[in-house]
Order: sequence, then structure tokens, then C-alpha cells
Amino acid sequence: MTDEQVASLCGAVRDRFGPAGDHLEPAPAPALAGVELRPPRVSPPDSLTSLCRGDIYERALHAYGRSYRDVVRAYRREFPHPPDVVAYPTRESEVVDVLDWCAGANIAAVPFGGGSSVVGGVEYDPGDAHAGVCVLDLTAMDRVLEIDRSSRAARIQAGALGPVLEDQLRPHGLTLRHFPQSFEVSTLGGWLATRSGGHFATLYTHIDDLTESMRVVTPTGISESRRLPGSGAGPSPDRMFLGSEGALGVITEAWMRLQDRPRWKGSAGVRFSEFATAVDAVRVLSQSGLFPTNCRLLDATEALISAGVGDVPAGGALVVLGFESADHPVAELLDRALEITAAHGGVVPEGERKLSDEGDPSAGREGAAGAWRGSFIRAPYTRDGLVRCGVIAETFETAVTWDRFSELHATVTETVDGVLSKVCGGGWITCRFTHVYPDGPAPYFSVLAPGRPGDELAMWADVKQAASEALLAAGATITHHHAVGRDHDPWYRRQRPEPFGRALAAAKAALDPAGILNPGVIA
Amino acid sequence: MTDEQVASLCGAVRDRFGPAGDHLEPAPAPALAGVELRPPRVSPPDSLTSLCRGDIYERALHAYGRSYRDVVRAYRREFPHPPDVVAYPTRESEVVDVLDWCAGANIAAVPFGGGSSVVGGVEYDPGDAHAGVCVLDLTAMDRVLEIDRSSRAARIQAGALGPVLEDQLRPHGLTLRHFPQSFEVSTLGGWLATRSGGHFATLYTHIDDLTESMRVVTPTGISESRRLPGSGAGPSPDRMFLGSEGALGVITEAWMRLQDRPRWKGSAGVRFSEFATAVDAVRVLSQSGLFPTNCRLLDATEALISAGVGDVPAGGALVVLGFESADHPVAELLDRALEITAAHGGVVPEGERKLSDEGDPSAGREGAAGAWRGSFIRAPYTRDGLVRCGVIAETFETAVTWDRFSELHATVTETVDGVLSKVCGGGWITCRFTHVYPDGPAPYFSVLAPGRPGDELAMWADVKQAASEALLAAGATITHHHAVGRDHDPWYRRQRPEPFGRALAAAKAALDPAGILNPGVIA
Repeated sequence: MTDEQVASLCGAVRDRFGPAGDHLEPAPAPALAGVELRPPRVSPPDSLTSLCRGDIYERALHAYGRSYRDVVRAYRREFPHPPDVVAYPTRESEVVDVLDWCAGANIAAVPFGGGSSVVGGVEYDPGDAHAGVCVLDLTAMDRVLEIDRSSRAARIQAGALGPVLEDQLRPHGLTLRHFPQSFEVSTLGGWLATRSGGHFATLYTHIDDLTESMRVVTPTGISESRRLPGSGAGPSPDRMFLGSEGALGVITEAWMRLQDRPRWKGSAGVRFSEFATAVDAVRVLSQSGLFPTNCRLLDATEALISAGVGDVPAGGALVVLGFESADHPVAELLDRALEITAAHGGVVPEGERKLSDEGDPSAGREGAAGAWRGSFIRAPYTRDGLVRCGVIAETFETAVTWDRFSELHATVTETVDGVLSKVCGGGWITCRFTHVYPDGPAPYFSVLAPGRPGDELAMWADVKQAASEALLAAGATITHHHAVGRDHDPWYRRQRPEPFGRALAAAKAALDPAGILNPGVIA
Repeated sequence: MTDEQVASLCGAVRDRFGPAGDHLEPAPAPALAGVELRPPRVSPPDSLTSLCRGDIYERALHAYGRSYRDVVRAYRREFPHPPDVVAYPTRESEVVDVLDWCAGANIAAVPFGGGSSVVGGVEYDPGDAHAGVCVLDLTAMDRVLEIDRSSRAARIQAGALGPVLEDQLRPHGLTLRHFPQSFEVSTLGGWLATRSGGHFATLYTHIDDLTESMRVVTPTGISESRRLPGSGAGPSPDRMFLGSEGALGVITEAWMRLQDRPRWKGSAGVRFSEFATAVDAVRVLSQSGLFPTNCRLLDATEALISAGVGDVPAGGALVVLGFESADHPVAELLDRALEITAAHGGVVPEGERKLSDEGDPSAGREGAAGAWRGSFIRAPYTRDGLVRCGVIAETFETAVTWDRFSELHATVTETVDGVLSKVCGGGWITCRFTHVYPDGPAPYFSVLAPGRPGDELAMWADVKQAASEALLAAGATITHHHAVGRDHDPWYRRQRPEPFGRALAAAKAALDPAGILNPGVIA
């Protein structure tokens, strides 16, 4: 964002926070000049120097992910735990070489993906446990290596960023159609390692479902699963590496299931005067077998802030519906979905039901659906602007069964509201659904509050702690698609079955006996 | 089958095999009288005697699954490795007690499910490795314990057989809708442990997809995953136990995702004059996003034998399509599917396109679709009759990407044909698809051949060996839904990534340090 945009944003949030936000001021744009880093503790052997970078810029760039904490500290030019070395392997054998060096020299190896972690997944303080930290950045391995048109699948290197990958698929009329909010700055390998959530609000929600096979370099050998459309041969090998967050190996490539580019689209923005009936409508939709591509519920504040839709009554909700197909028109599906929402009191304003075939790509780009989509992609940039204004901006997300959602929503809102008024003197929390399943939604909460200069991280920690406890107490998961990292670790360990945790630790010890892979994460 | 039915069946197959089948004669129905078993090597402690059975009937009944080898040996009254004890726990604490006893006394603990394993999953020869074998039969734990109507989920004990489970769901208007061929004689726990394949030909193919959470007794603690509609918190705990085939723990209950009972159904039987174009049609269907409930392709011989449909040209195929919904009419979906099949030359005979709503439940019960369904459920019984006639009857199944299917089909057919003519002097192999995915089908092969009395098992082993090698060489999986057991073990170990195998073995050692759980299977 430009300085002018930040100043304007700052004015807007001051107005909304009232007196508690009076002190907020835009800070200057961050710069790398003057940043000082601890000297590197280790340096790569001659055989690896051509792949490795040790300059301040590279080390600072790879010191953090993109969480609120990360952004605040970067603005403060605080980098207490920068990596000592950043390795850019250009082929798989170089990944093997880097891991060999790390294992031999007791250096922690942290796969970076695109560095979009919002959960402390890429920052490691080795203390006395490791001699140093080497970050692996695979963005030089970004090619689509092979396309199987008849099976609609492609072999893709793990370092490909979202747009890089889609650019290579487009000429073939194909698309992975996985668009996490971090799409522009995250990699296929990162999506796989963190079980990223994407474009489809129903059915193919996680990257897991789009994965045909994976190739993973572990310190004790390369694991390559067979390309299979389905299998029942023992526990799924891929499912062990999906979500392993760099703790079991470095993903180097994967065969991914692709989609034909959609020809027909339909969308609608449905207004509800009551949040609870909107939730009911979405529940029925999720169980209808219609499988809308988009099925996002936004509370009234969320609709205003994140989609700029101002006609949702206070206490009500906006439901953004979308259907798409490369095979058949979607009007019937959309209309049946709108029968369901209408039966729950949902209203579609004039012009908010859109349909298109190939000739008219505007469906889904106008009205509430279009507003939501545009703002969804801009949100991370807006967040960074808010941080510059001194605003505490946190999002957390979960999934829970339908029977427990109402209580979860109430307790999380009440708990976070309480912490905000006590700790920040104000602020607000909003809720939307990012994905929905027949047995429950994936609610996503956004928190904005005025920070006190210098105290922001402690204030954030109070909010995070309270919110996480509320999620766990309500029977929900500590994360639906943001991953675990180091920030969610305490709750993750309480959430997962204890025997499973032991099994996973044993699996890690078998694959990574030196314990160098992303220490402190997952296993 | 009655003696008369078997005699009639025997005549029919003799006619079809020609001279190679002249010697086939129906054997007398099997009886338990005269069966002798090795004396039990171990007996349960006093605290467990009320749960345990050691009589010949129970031990013989739990000595085998239902594979061809098992049925042949049972007819011969050969039971070389019967369990020493059969335990019928009635509650979870008794499962814990049985495993404690087994771990302390070095007794192998083999979970039995319903005993429908066709891959040697429940027969264990302890040799000197274990003091004895205790089979756990959980069919006394068969209750639906809890129903969450709004999330459409139920907590169900693992010992429930298919019909027992559905009977308890029906009054609530709900159904698990998982109908493996073994439905009547297999349990929920068995389905979960073996990643069973069910009713849905697309989308929810394996029981995995219907699983919300699981509770598993391991020798070192109880693992219970959280009920969640979706999660991204590390590798999925459930996916480690799904497919673990009793090697990691005994599943005692699970929260399962349910369906509303369908109100609208539609079906059609489409004839193709060429097998290859039928395959193309099914590939396009699988990638259309229409998600038919049924989408089975049968080659001409398979159509005749297994569905009694005689009007499919030699070298052609029958595609059985079905749609169902509890929410909306399915005529549009069926018609779009039939446009796709017609574009590939598929023909629907007069009266073979059926639609019904609540008032007419006959759709899917008549025509080719109905014939296929009826015969699908009777097939295991027919197989047992064939074995009584001396026929070698084997089925094996796999999954493979679309680009490799044609070669797989050719090499498997040629390989097995070659073995049959060399070893059996005749016989035939047929192919159908049980499930289809956007990136490939799950082909299922049936083999029938005249056996030489006394040599059947050696002949079967030759066929099995050749078929399994052909599957692996073609890039397919050794099993899509029959599981691994002991029969597929050599190929399973070659198929799975070596590092994953080590990780799984380490996980097992952590959960089952005494190595008592279903030894020799999976881990």
C-alpha cells in the first residue's frame, strides 16, 4: 500500500474504534537499511556455496513468515532468529546434498515454501540444540514437468508459486484451481506441507484432495508414492506427508489432479436478516449434494469490511454462492440452491443472481460475489497496512460439527470481545465460513483492535491464547487450513490423540534420526 | 446354495469350459462334523473366561476369512492354523483387558471384523514367534450409540454388521450408504481397518471419506480423534488407522458421516459395441462433475455372467449409470450423462432409462441396472457354489490412471489368459470398473477356470502370482479395496515407498511394542 492509502486506512479505523483508537498513527514504510543480524554461526561447504546465500537481505527475507507477529517485528527491524544460510536448490539432488550437510553438521533444515506461514512455521531458534539454521527455498524448482491430459494430472515441482504454476497449465486448458489467500506468494510444496485450503468451498476443500502422488526427500531416503487415482493398500503414504510441515521431509514434486477451465459460472449474494437462519441455510446447502464451488457465509460486519457489502442488516449475514462447470450449465443448480436459501428467508437483491457461459466471464466478478472475491485477494495487503497504523489484526480459523457451531460462535465471540475490551479498550471480532462440509462449517474469525505502541505483541498473545482455548473447549480444531507451526503447537498437542502423537514422533525418528527437519513443528 | 442349485451351476460351467471342464463334479456340502483342530496352546485367565470361547465350532469359524483359498480349505476340512481362543468383548474395557493379556503372554491378537477378508487378513500361523493366537470378534459391540441429526453423523460401535447398523439408522431417515459386496457379513470396524470400497462409484468411494472420527484401542493406550468435519492440524490421525488392518490397534467405535435416504433416483444401462469407447465415455463422465452414484463399466462377458445382460456385443461393454438424491430430481443429471455416453456411441435400449421419485422405488431395480445390483449382492454365494464344483474362482482389483488403463487391461488379460491355458487348460478373465475417479478407474477382474481336484490351490497361486506381477508392472495398485492382508504382502512392500514403510514400522513399534497385533500384516 502507498503511504497515502495507509494514512486513509488509519483515519478510517480511528473513526471506527472511537476513543480507544485515538492514538493510532501510520508508521513509516519499513526498510531494510540499518537492519543488523547476528553473524552466521555456520557456513556451507564449498560444494554447496553456489546454492547458498548468506547476505543480510536473504537472511532477513527468510527469517519470518507473514503472521501478525512476523509483520510487527519486521516493521520494528527485529530479527532475533534469522537463518544462518539460505539454500536455493535447483534440482532434487541438491536438496539431498543440503540435507546431508545439515544432518552431518547438526544444522536445522527449515523448508520455507513461499514464506507465507501465519503460524510461526518457518522461524526457528536453535538455542543449544543445533549448530545453526539453514532455510531451504525451492522457488528455483518451479516447473511443470509433465502433463497427462487424459488423466488430467501434472507433475509439478514443489517450488512453483501459484501464478507460476497456473501460467504453465493455462496453455493446456487446465488449472489446479487451488487459490488460497496466499496464492501469489505461496508454493505448491508449502500447500502440501500445510494442508492448505483453497478455491472450492465444498468437496475439494484442501490440497489433500487434489494430490495424486508425492515425492519427498527425507534425510534417510527419497519417498515416492505411486500415481494412483485411489488405493486401499494400507494407510495412505501421502496422508502422512500432507500436513507434516517440513518435519518429515522436503517435498520436491507432486502429481496433482487438475480441472478443466470452467465454461459456465453462476453466482448470487443472498442477504439474511438473522445470522442463525443463514447458518441453517448453509447447513442444508452443504448436505444437498449440490456442491457449490463457493458457499461463503459472512456476518454483517465481515460483509461490510471484507466485501464492502453494506446492505446486510446488523445481526444478519451475507451468503455468497457460486457454481462453475466445464461440462454443463449451472443455472439449475444455482436455482435449486436459491430455493434452499429462500426457504430460510434469504433474499437476493435485483441483479445479484448472475450467470455466464464462455461469452460472458463477468459472472462471479460483480455484485456481492465479485466484491467478496476482489477483497479476498487484497486482504493480506490491507492487513499489512493496518499493522503500520498500529492496529492488532489477527485471523484464526477452525472447523466444527454443525451441532456445536452455535455455541462455538457464542463463546469465541464473547471470549475475544472480553479480552479486547480488557486489553485493548475496544476492537471487534467478525466471523465468516471459508469452507463447508456436510457435517460442519469451517468458521474463520477476524479480529481488529487498537494496539498500544510497543505492547502490540503481548496484547496479541492475550487474544491468541484466549481464542485458542475457546476453540479447543468448544470441540473444534486449532486449525482448518492455517497449519500448526510453532504458534499452535501447545493446542495441537492437546488436540491430537496421544498415541497418534507417539506414533508420529516414532515415524519422524525413523526418517530424520538426527532431528534436523524443522525442529519443534508437528512431530 | 442348495444342492440342486450347485448341480445346475456345475452343469452350466461344464458347458462353458468345454473339454477342460469335463471332470467337474459338485462336492457335498461342507459340514463341521469330523473336523479336528490342533489343541489350544493357550487359555485365557479366569478374568476373561466369560468372554472367551475355545470350542471347535468357534475356532474353526474364526480360522479363515472368505478368500478362494479359505473356502477350498474349509471344504477340505483343513484348518492348519486355527486360533486358540476366540474372545467376544462386549465393551471397550474388555478389549483393553484382552490386549493386556495378549501383550503380557506374547499371544497374537487378531481382530476378525466379520471375517470377510479375501486376502488372508485373519489367518496367522504363530510358529515360534507367539505362544498362541487370540481372535477378537467384536460383533457383540454393534450399537448405534448416538445420532447427531444436524451434522448427519452417528457414533457407532465397530462390531456392527452392515444390516445391523442400517436397521438402527433407518428409523431416523438416515443411512451410512456403504454397501461393499460383503455388506451382510462384514462390520464397520472391518470396513475402516481395510479401507473398504462401497456404494458410491464416484466421490465417496472408500469408507475413509465417510469417517468423521475414530476410537482405537492400542496396546499402549486409547487413541480417540476429535469429531471434525475437516482439519488441517498436522497429518490426519484417522488416515493412519484407516487401512491399518489390525496392525496398529483395535477399532472400537467411530463417528460416521451419514446420508439422508434418497428420494429421487435415475438409472440407465448403456450398451457400447467397443470396449475402448466405453472406457472413453466413462473417463469423460468421471471428469464431468456430474458424480453419478453408480458408474460401473462391465465388459461383455462380465455383463452376461454377473448381470445376466446378454445383448452386449462381443468386444463391447455395458455401462450401468445411476443417480440419486435426497434433495433434488436427477433427470437433468442423468440426461447430461447420457449425452456424454451417446457422443461415444453408447445406446440405451427402450425402457432402460428409469426415473423415480418417492412414489416409485423401482428405478435402479429393473433393467440392466437392476440386474447388476441383484447379482452383485448374490455373487459371493455363487462363488462358494462354484468352488464346490471344483472351479477356481478368483477376483482381484486395482486402480490405475487413465493413461495407463489400456495397457494394464491388455497385459493383465494376456498374462492371466496365458497362465489359465497353461495351468488349467482353459478358463476366462473378465473386467469391470467398480469405482471411477477423475484421474482413473478402479478395474476389477474375475477369473474362472476348471480346477484339477487336489491341485486347486497351487493352480490358484500361479494365477494370483502372475496377475499381481502384471498389476505392479503396469503402475497400478495391488489393491483398491480388497486390502493387503498376507496374500498381497509381497507386492504391497514393493509398492509402498520404502521410507514410508520404515515410518509405519516405527509407528507400530511405538503403539504395539510387544508386536502382538495381527503380526505379518501391513506394518
